[in-house]
Amino acid sequence: MDPTERFLRACRRQPVDRPPIWIMRQAGRYMPSYQAIRDKVSFMELCRSPELCTEVTLMPIDQIGVDAAILFSDILIPLEGMGLDVSFDDRGPRVSPPLRTAAEVDGLRVDGADEEVAYVYEAVRQIKTALSGRVPLLGFAGAPLTLAIYAIEGGSSRNRHSVRKMVYEAPEVLERLLDKLATVVTRYLRHQIDAGVDVVQIFDTWGGTMSLADWRRFSLPYTARIMEGIKDTGVPIVHYALDSAHLTEGLVELPCDVLSVDWRQPLSLIREQTGGRFALQGNVEPGVLTCADEHIYAAAKACLDDYGDGPGHIFNLGHGITPDVSVAAAKALVDAAKELGAR
Amino acid sequence: MDPTERFLRACRRQPVDRPPIWIMRQAGRYMPSYQAIRDKVSFMELCRSPELCTEVTLMPIDQIGVDAAILFSDILIPLEGMGLDVSFDDRGPRVSPPLRTAAEVDGLRVDGADEEVAYVYEAVRQIKTALSGRVPLLGFAGAPLTLAIYAIEGGSSRNRHSVRKMVYEAPEVLERLLDKLATVVTRYLRHQIDAGVDVVQIFDTWGGTMSLADWRRFSLPYTARIMEGIKDTGVPIVHYALDSAHLTEGLVELPCDVLSVDWRQPLSLIREQTGGRFALQGNVEPGVLTCADEHIYAAAKACLDDYGDGPGHIFNLGHGITPDVSVAAAKALVDAAKELGAR
Repeated sequence: MDPTERFLRACRRQPVDRPPIWIMRQAGRYMPSYQAIRDKVSFMELCRSPELCTEVTLMPIDQIGVDAAILFSDILIPLEGMGLDVSFDDRGPRVSPPLRTAAEVDGLRVDGADEEVAYVYEAVRQIKTALSGRVPLLGFAGAPLTLAIYAIEGGSSRNRHSVRKMVYEAPEVLERLLDKLATVVTRYLRHQIDAGVDVVQIFDTWGGTMSLADWRRFSLPYTARIMEGIKDTGVPIVHYALDSAHLTEGLVELPCDVLSVDWRQPLSLIREQTGGRFALQGNVEPGVLTCADEHIYAAAKACLDDYGDGPGHIFNLGHGITPDVSVAAAKALVDAAKELGAR
Repeated sequence: MDPTERFLRACRRQPVDRPPIWIMRQAGRYMPSYQAIRDKVSFMELCRSPELCTEVTLMPIDQIGVDAAILFSDILIPLEGMGLDVSFDDRGPRVSPPLRTAAEVDGLRVDGADEEVAYVYEAVRQIKTALSGRVPLLGFAGAPLTLAIYAIEGGSSRNRHSVRKMVYEAPEVLERLLDKLATVVTRYLRHQIDAGVDVVQIFDTWGGTMSLADWRRFSLPYTARIMEGIKDTGVPIVHYALDSAHLTEGLVELPCDVLSVDWRQPLSLIREQTGGRFALQGNVEPGVLTCADEHIYAAAKACLDDYGDGPGHIFNLGHGITPDVSVAAAKALVDAAKELGAR
């Protein structure tokens, strides 16, 4: 089966020869070939270079044989377009200045923010050409809430108390920020789609740190608006949430095709809870990739067996692949998923 | 109502005049009086001094008016008794050497490990004397799985891949470690009870990072064994789990009196899911304590309203109080819980 057809059909819960497999962060620090490029350029320089993005995006297709490519970029790129400084160091992403006041939120660029990061769309075009139809290409962006949390905290944060303070003391400021982010991300994803991505994924990495009630208020409507805003393109939409067992009741209200979940809950349970209305992506526990091949094989089998028969499974990890993994281990997972999935 | 009677009755889901309130980490870094002591001694020196532990344990009783005291100590203390080095720096706890092999696990002391940390039981005795019945005293320990994760990783860990590797490649080594920990923690808590604690809490802080299937295998039986092993004392048992929405089905199998949960799920939902068979502790979101008093008041009201009528609510945060909180804010929460709870 053609890999693009297989992926799109899986998203739409139509029968396929086997579940497609790709891996979150499949082009990344675990690869010596990626590290060789990062020895020469910073993470943001890499993101801003369509040529380098193309080279990196294709690495896992060639080296581990995944069934889909995902644009090499970062979920925080739209923040750069809006006028914030985005950088990365050993401790993770840095966004400055951190947004704390209504005036700071009001000062963010909306119109033109999408055009500021046109290097992303150029990367998509170059990647599509380089792929020449071998596998489908996923585009992506951060969910408004997750982007807002990074922007307000100024990066990763253990307690996210600056966000919590805004939730309690100035929810209307947070909502204004989320509104702007939803507009920018919608346009940003439309550009990616225009440039050729076959599927888009929205990452709500931090949504699960909130209660269902807060997530319903501060994430669901904004992500849903983005999804509605790109629906006419016909491109399947994947929603990823980390640590989301308490959010399932809200996740089912998202107008998307695929729910991508972490390793905490079996796919069979989510499938039952969502009434089979979504394709499901995931959810092998990333730590298994630090183990011997037999354990990787067993984990792939357990995931496929748990999902069970019927269409709508996109094989993936439950979270991104980590730098302590070997390329051989990643390839072992891909090989196992391909072999075991073809039944 | 006598505070000890109120607390014990709440644990047993018997009617009380109002829900008792205490706060996880209520004696800690947010208090200038605590910081003044820490300027002079290290965290472990403080833990090893019954006199200083007594002084610190009583601080929140005097300063914010909580309804219960909790022994000042750390969940990792039993690891010290077993022969590991436990210390604390800016990045959190350090346990060395990290346990990775069967031989290292086999080398851990079990018999006598409880006696190695007899300073804890002496602290309990001195605290009980100092409290002279004003409020009840909670003792505590880490759950075997949480202790094992710290011991294997050598401290806090983002991915916990050393543990994951052991889960896949050497589960029998992990089980041997958990077995030892369950034995030591049982004795450790029995000593605390003998010395006078009125209630014990077992912290499974990292349990929620595992799937339900893994938690059922690597946490439930060991924590349950501890609970069974102290049941005859008649002291109520509280179980705390962070991030446990996917574990509820397993948590209900714990032979304990109180389930303490984080802020992700409303208490009303847990109460419904557990059929009212447990008292519930929690679950105000800790970040609200960085906000103005009106928000603290509203959060207290929301939590009490959500729990609703009927006995069995112990008011608390959903996780520990953080260093960025003021003593006045902590007191505002206690005052609000007392006022609003008395209906």
